[in-house]
Amino acid sequence: MEPATSDRWQAAFFKLRSNKAFELFVIGIIVFSALVIGVKTYPLPETLVQVVGVLDWMITLIFLVEIVIRFLGEPEKKRFFRSGWNVFDTLIVVVSLIPIEDTEMALIGRLIRIFRVLRMVSIIPELRMLLNSLLKALPQLGYVMLMMFIIFYIYAAIGSTFFASINSELWGDIALSLLTLFRVMTFEDWTDVMYETMAVYPFSWAYYLTFIFFTAFAFLNMVIGIVVNVLEEEHQRMAAEEAEAAGEPTLKDLQQEIQELKQLLQSQAAAQK
Amino acid sequence: MEPATSDRWQAAFFKLRSNKAFELFVIGIIVFSALVIGVKTYPLPETLVQVVGVLDWMITLIFLVEIVIRFLGEPEKKRFFRSGWNVFDTLIVVVSLIPIEDTEMALIGRLIRIFRVLRMVSIIPELRMLLNSLLKALPQLGYVMLMMFIIFYIYAAIGSTFFASINSELWGDIALSLLTLFRVMTFEDWTDVMYETMAVYPFSWAYYLTFIFFTAFAFLNMVIGIVVNVLEEEHQRMAAEEAEAAGEPTLKDLQQEIQELKQLLQSQAAAQK
Amino acid sequence: MEPATSDRWQAAFFKLRSNKAFELFVIGIIVFSALVIGVKTYPLPETLVQVVGVLDWMITLIFLVEIVIRFLGEPEKKRFFRSGWNVFDTLIVVVSLIPIEDTEMALIGRLIRIFRVLRMVSIIPELRMLLNSLLKALPQLGYVMLMMFIIFYIYAAIGSTFFASINSELWGDIALSLLTLFRVMTFEDWTDVMYETMAVYPFSWAYYLTFIFFTAFAFLNMVIGIVVNVLEEEHQRMAAEEAEAAGEPTLKDLQQEIQELKQLLQSQAAAQK
Amino acid sequence: MEPATSDRWQAAFFKLRSNKAFELFVIGIIVFSALVIGVKTYPLPETLVQVVGVLDWMITLIFLVEIVIRFLGEPEKKRFFRSGWNVFDTLIVVVSLIPIEDTEMALIGRLIRIFRVLRMVSIIPELRMLLNSLLKALPQLGYVMLMMFIIFYIYAAIGSTFFASINSELWGDIALSLLTLFRVMTFEDWTDVMYETMAVYPFSWAYYLTFIFFTAFAFLNMVIGIVVNVLEEEHQRMAAEEAEAAGEPTLKDLQQEIQELKQLLQSQAAAQK
Repeated sequence: MEPATSDRWQAAFFKLRSNKAFELFVIGIIVFSALVIGVKTYPLPETLVQVVGVLDWMITLIFLVEIVIRFLGEPEKKRFFRSGWNVFDTLIVVVSLIPIEDTEMALIGRLIRIFRVLRMVSIIPELRMLLNSLLKALPQLGYVMLMMFIIFYIYAAIGSTFFASINSELWGDIALSLLTLFRVMTFEDWTDVMYETMAVYPFSWAYYLTFIFFTAFAFLNMVIGIVVNVLEEEHQRMAAEEAEAAGEPTLKDLQQEIQELKQLLQSQAAAQK
Repeated sequence: MEPATSDRWQAAFFKLRSNKAFELFVIGIIVFSALVIGVKTYPLPETLVQVVGVLDWMITLIFLVEIVIRFLGEPEKKRFFRSGWNVFDTLIVVVSLIPIEDTEMALIGRLIRIFRVLRMVSIIPELRMLLNSLLKALPQLGYVMLMMFIIFYIYAAIGSTFFASINSELWGDIALSLLTLFRVMTFEDWTDVMYETMAVYPFSWAYYLTFIFFTAFAFLNMVIGIVVNVLEEEHQRMAAEEAEAAGEPTLKDLQQEIQELKQLLQSQAAAQK
Repeated sequence: MEPATSDRWQAAFFKLRSNKAFELFVIGIIVFSALVIGVKTYPLPETLVQVVGVLDWMITLIFLVEIVIRFLGEPEKKRFFRSGWNVFDTLIVVVSLIPIEDTEMALIGRLIRIFRVLRMVSIIPELRMLLNSLLKALPQLGYVMLMMFIIFYIYAAIGSTFFASINSELWGDIALSLLTLFRVMTFEDWTDVMYETMAVYPFSWAYYLTFIFFTAFAFLNMVIGIVVNVLEEEHQRMAAEEAEAAGEPTLKDLQQEIQELKQLLQSQAAAQK
Repeated sequence: MEPATSDRWQAAFFKLRSNKAFELFVIGIIVFSALVIGVKTYPLPETLVQVVGVLDWMITLIFLVEIVIRFLGEPEKKRFFRSGWNVFDTLIVVVSLIPIEDTEMALIGRLIRIFRVLRMVSIIPELRMLLNSLLKALPQLGYVMLMMFIIFYIYAAIGSTFFASINSELWGDIALSLLTLFRVMTFEDWTDVMYETMAVYPFSWAYYLTFIFFTAFAFLNMVIGIVVNVLEEEHQRMAAEEAEAAGEPTLKDLQQEIQELKQLLQSQAAAQK
């Protein structure tokens, strides 16, 4: 039985989207679109602005065609939108297609075009894997991050209670205090902040020093936690690989074989009696 | 025999305090109290200030009830105050209850309310474990910290001996010098400090560079010390787990079995002669 | 048969260039040339300038002689220029020989003389190995660096879209924005940059905080990636060494021997029947 | 035969200097001398200055007595000055004894008194071990430090060649350039330095960025090198400990025993024929 025309088309598109040259072409277009975005940030003569506008639409069109090809090439249409990256790609392209005249909305249109650079991650499998491994590492940090936030919050509450009247721009409310504390954590002109409050509360250096100590210590623990986790996983993966790849028997296997030997000998001895 | 009424009450409270929903409710109240603290740092209209005041008293009341439930639910009352966290929780609640009118004391009242956020750590077991492991890592650092303090102290003494007349705000006495050196260690505008003293002592760059080198080196050693300690513990824990979990025999076990085999064979040989 | 005169010369030069004293002499000359470069950066009296000029030509001459010796000492002349370091050394010496009068070119002449310090790396084998191991570690970082560049590029595009009108020196075009973001990543006065844009877009702190978070996280991953790679290589190298050096049998070898034992016993048992 | 009187005295002093209480007393005196040094940095009333002066002489005297006791308690007098710490202690005490009136020399006298704090390291064995392990780690870093210095030197030479006319305070000669580059490496206001030179050489950002990249990379490698070294040593120490402590047989031992078994069986089989 001959496959239906649509099936043949689907197979053709599937072949096309799996094509290495096609993939490289798409990567090339993404790089080109990134360059166009970069060029647009420079002051350009009127004619070049129009050229860039045309290039922009061409890129959008190529992306549209590419998404359509990838969708038509999908054997099971429903599964296509299960992948977050496909949804992201489609959204970026669809929103790029909406003609925006309003100046407010125009900014959003430019933002969308900038996010097209992220398609690089969606199309290069190694980057996708890297991002996944980064995201997978996040939940492990959950409790350390919560602990750090509690430290930040308590210090911010104390800071805005005592220092709000000294410098309301830095300590005016808890949000500003949180930002100021983040600044202190990055050591960015933190002594200026400290000397200002020390003029009123001479012992406020203790506030900053304990804060720096706590956050540095929590941060260090976070880093060590990640390193240990990564090393442990590596270790287990390697151990598993070695054991499987080499077909290496475990000590338990050896023990069993030795015990079988013993039984053999004992039954032999019993038979000879 | 029927248990006494007090025992039945105790059992009921014990059940309540072990209840997951009860715990989540308390966590919710702590988060809410943190939000109330945050809101209070913003300028509020009079009516909202009163609402916040009422909320504050309600939170204190709920915390009081919770502590009472946890105390009554404790099978052995004496053990309750052995846990530092229980003492901390009780103190926080009791001090919150004292009505403070004096403006000076009012600040302390606000501080106590801020520390209620720390109850988050006392109620979430994972955070409590994290804090314990952080505290457990501290004594290991004892000698490195002492060494670092000696370096700081010597440099601070030298600094206030030579530089006090150059800038008395930075090097006036040994306490100020210690603070200035901490600032130099965080690289915060340290060149400004250095250029100022280099104008008088052209070779004072050596003072700063050796100080940065020593502290950076000691700090590095501290970090590496922690990493190695953590990895070693992990390693031993994993080795112990593997050995136990898999019921894996050791090489020594195998050796013994082989030796038993040999004896069996030798006694057989002796019997046949 | 007597070797040709050229062969004898070649052998003599080969012996000379392998001589430890010759190597130390060349290292001494390189150190001396580095000192001459350093001295030239100070304001010098006319006579000393002339002395330095003469020294400079002497150093160039010695380097020329050394390269010629090393070339003549090479058994296979073709292989000499296969080594990148030989090409580098020759280039540096040849360009040093060109007499430059023009002031513009004079700067390049001075640059070339500075790069002669790099000959230190080409002549000390340990430094050459160190550099090679550094360069070998680079490709492993490829994808993380690409990911980091994508993050930088997207943030730079957003930055120059929104902030160009606020401060055109920091955010004027995408190149300036990339530089500004690198500055933010090093925490260098990043709050000044932030407060400036927060005056116009109050929520732009989110831009900086997410950027710092992403880059710090990616950087951390890069570092951990290198550490894990290095440790893994070390581990495999050590395992391989141990196994080989000790002539240690694998568990598989033991299993085979035990199975041979079993077969022996079984055939014995069969023979006795 | 009775020991000579001097021997009995020596034994008594040896016992005294090994006494825990004596050691704690000396540590107490060192801490007290450190406090006296700290107090002297504050402006003091005349009477207190005199008290401090007396305390100072008492401390010097106690230290003198202590050194004498330790010297007399030494069984072999020659070995006493073989220990660098003993030489250091003696020097500090002897120089403290010289009465200094001259104001210039008075500063040196104060410095010597400050260095008495270092006696803490000489008297607490754990600190002495820590310092030794720090010093032992240094030579491993030798080549990386040399490489880093070459990078610094080349960049400093380039910097003072090109930028000396822009800002002679930062780039005037090679020593100033090295200091400026160290400042850039610590990210301390490095953009100010960069923007200044970018005004003349627009592409000088490449100079700074490559420098930061190279030094950061070399520094990272140094850190990783130390971590790997430390972990390797730990690993070997642990492996050695395990093997010895448990009396664990190696795989080779097991192989030998199995081979002995085989020979036994084969000789048995031969005997039965």
